[in-house]
Amino acid sequence: MPDEIATLYRIGTVVSVEGDLSTIRVEPDYVDGLYRIDTADYLDILFWIPLDRGVLRVHPHGDPERKLRGVFSTRSPVRPNPIGLTRVKLVSHDGATIVVRGLDALIDTAVVDIKIGEGPTHGN
Amino acid sequence: MPDEIATLYRIGTVVSVEGDLSTIRVEPDYVDGLYRIDTADYLDILFWIPLDRGVLRVHPHGDPERKLRGVFSTRSPVRPNPIGLTRVKLVSHDGATIVVRGLDALIDTAVVDIKIGEGPTHGN
Repeated sequence: MPDEIATLYRIGTVVSVEGDLSTIRVEPDYVDGLYRIDTADYLDILFWIPLDRGVLRVHPHGDPERKLRGVFSTRSPVRPNPIGLTRVKLVSHDGATIVVRGLDALIDTAVVDIKIGEGPTHGN
Repeated sequence: MPDEIATLYRIGTVVSVEGDLSTIRVEPDYVDGLYRIDTADYLDILFWIPLDRGVLRVHPHGDPERKLRGVFSTRSPVRPNPIGLTRVKLVSHDGATIVVRGLDALIDTAVVDIKIGEGPTHGN
């Protein structure tokens, strides 16, 4: 049996997606965690993907022409702990809301963490 | 009250740290997720940090000379969902074990996800 080590809380939600711009609304309890985020250029957004947790091999990018790989050597959303991770550009911040560019998540996705992005970017 | 959205499973453990080399042993149930990881150069390691989840402002790097920031504009280990994230170099893979360079986690840390690192590295 898998060893359960922690419970994740929703710290925010993707409330709109328009083109490459996504708006995240942070929960009232956690808004203070955005204090002085305005000075950040890039952020790493961690979000929860409610997909199958039992698959361990996938075709990269869902392309059957590509050889199967273990999920840990892909960025497939299907994995035992389906946490998505995207480096994004911070566009704006107003109260509980941030707008970011390049987030690879659908509307209504639960956000579980936001970190300042250190080092070079991932192409966004 | 925070909205609980998911349970995290331990997929592996940091079993040794020597200098900048760390060994991760993946749980038997999840070893197949390492299939063909040998071709990866860099990995993003996500791990769980059993620290206080209630702090929302910190002094960056614990330095009281630095102005307080919201935790979401830092990479402080203290945050509502204390998931650590480090880009590492894959050094070797043998069965359930991988050796990586540059992991910022203590021995016995629970690993919750491993992803191939796309794009430029974070300085490791």
